[in-house]
Amino acid sequence: MPQILIKEQEHKISVPILLTAVSGKIRVKNRSIVNEYGTPVAVKRDGFSLSNYVEWQIGYDVVKRENEKLAESSLPETEFTGANGKIKALYELSEYIWYFHKWNVITREELEDVINYLNSIQTNSLIGNNSELQIDRRHPIAKNINGFCFEYTQVKYPLLIYKFNGYEIVTEIKITEKQYAVGTQPMLYLCFPITELKVGTSLIGRTAETKEIAYFEITESNIKVFLEMLKMFGILSNNHRHDILQIINTILV
Amino acid sequence: MPQILIKEQEHKISVPILLTAVSGKIRVKNRSIVNEYGTPVAVKRDGFSLSNYVEWQIGYDVVKRENEKLAESSLPETEFTGANGKIKALYELSEYIWYFHKWNVITREELEDVINYLNSIQTNSLIGNNSELQIDRRHPIAKNINGFCFEYTQVKYPLLIYKFNGYEIVTEIKITEKQYAVGTQPMLYLCFPITELKVGTSLIGRTAETKEIAYFEITESNIKVFLEMLKMFGILSNNHRHDILQIINTILV
Repeated sequence: MPQILIKEQEHKISVPILLTAVSGKIRVKNRSIVNEYGTPVAVKRDGFSLSNYVEWQIGYDVVKRENEKLAESSLPETEFTGANGKIKALYELSEYIWYFHKWNVITREELEDVINYLNSIQTNSLIGNNSELQIDRRHPIAKNINGFCFEYTQVKYPLLIYKFNGYEIVTEIKITEKQYAVGTQPMLYLCFPITELKVGTSLIGRTAETKEIAYFEITESNIKVFLEMLKMFGILSNNHRHDILQIINTILV
Repeated sequence: MPQILIKEQEHKISVPILLTAVSGKIRVKNRSIVNEYGTPVAVKRDGFSLSNYVEWQIGYDVVKRENEKLAESSLPETEFTGANGKIKALYELSEYIWYFHKWNVITREELEDVINYLNSIQTNSLIGNNSELQIDRRHPIAKNINGFCFEYTQVKYPLLIYKFNGYEIVTEIKITEKQYAVGTQPMLYLCFPITELKVGTSLIGRTAETKEIAYFEITESNIKVFLEMLKMFGILSNNHRHDILQIINTILV
C-alpha cells in the first residue's frame, strides 16, 4: 500500500484503503439487518451497496527489522521496545496520534491522561484477563443428522462493540484463540460505512476497479476517536498496555 | 508435500504429514481437558505431547488447471466436473477410495449404497441447510468495562463431532461464515492423535525436526472410516453432494 498522505496545513491525514483486497488487514464487508456480523463482499463482481462497511484491523506498530512493512510507516526513525522485546516504530494509529500531537490538536495533557488511565486499571480487569470474556463451549449433546449420530455443541466467541457517539465509527473487539499458546487474545477492528470514504466517483451501485484505492480522512473532527482507540488498545492485555504506554512516551519525548 | 506412497501388495497408502506446517490444511493441535477446542502447537519450540492431535482439513478434489496442486494427486488423469463447473481430478479422500475399490477392498455395492443414501437425503436436510445449525448471535447487552460502555454479545458457531467407533479417528464439522456470500458453510476436519502417526523416533517428549514428515497409514482396517467420511461430505451441502456423486461415478466407471 502507498504511504499515508500528510497535509500539515490542513491538519489532515489521508489513509489509502485498497478496496479490492481479499486478504490482509482491511476488508470491505456487508452487514445485513438480520445478522450484524459482517461477511466479505466481492466488490469487483458484486459492487458496492449502502450496507457495506470497511473492517480494518488497525495496527499501532511495525517491527523495525521488517523493512518492507517499515517502509509503510511515515515515521520509520521513531523507536520503542515492544512487550515482546522487539524494536518497533510508530505505525498507523500511533503514527496519526504523533502528527496530531505535533500539530497541537492532541495536547500533552490528553496523552498524560491516557497514561494515568492505563496505570489505574488493575491487571485482572484487562479485557484478555476478564473471566466473563472467555471463549466457551456448550456441553455436547447427541444429535442424529441423516443417520449419523453426532455430538453437537456450540463454540461461543465474545464480541464487544463500541460506538463512538456522534461518529459513524465503531470498534469491534473479537476474542479469539491465541495462536501457539493456551488462552485467548482480543483483536481490535475499526469499522466505518464505505460512505465515509473519499473517492472520485461514488461507490454505491458500481463495482470496484482493479486495485481501486479510496481514502479515509483523519482530521481534527475525528482524531479524538483515534485517541479513544489508543486507550482501548491499552486495556486489551498486559502486552498491549505495555506497548501503548511506550508509544505515548515516544510521542511525548 | 510429497505424493502419497501406494503399496499395492499390502493394500496400504501412506500419507505424508508435514508436522511443522504453520499454515495449510494440516496442523498439529493440542486439546486440553477443560476445553476440547484445540489450539495450534509450536512443535519445533515446545515439542510433542500425548494430548496433541493432527487436524486435517481433508479434501477430495483438485482443479485440473491448477498444475502445482494437481501434481500432488497420484491420479491426475481422472476427471469429473465439480458443482462449480470446474474440471477436477480425484485427490486425497477420493484418491484413497479409488485405490481401495481397485483393490477390491471397497466393493461396488458399498459405493452404490453411498449413492442411494445421498439420493435419499432431502435437500433441506443437508447440514448447510439445517436451520438448527446456523451461526447465531445473542442479543447485545450493555457492559461497562474499565469505563467504556460496550455492547456485549456472543457469536455462536455450531460444531458437530463424529466419533468412529473403535477408531482413534474423529471428524469435526465446523459451521463458518461463507466467504463472499451470505450464508454459512460447513467445513469438515479429520482429527486423530499424533500417536497414530508412523515415525522413526517416537514424537512424545521431543521437538520436531526442520520440515519433519510423519506418515498416516490407510489400510484395510481403517478404510471404512474414509468411506463413511465420503458419505458425510455428501450431506454437507448440495454442492458437496453433487461432487461426491460425481466422484463415485468416476470411481465406478
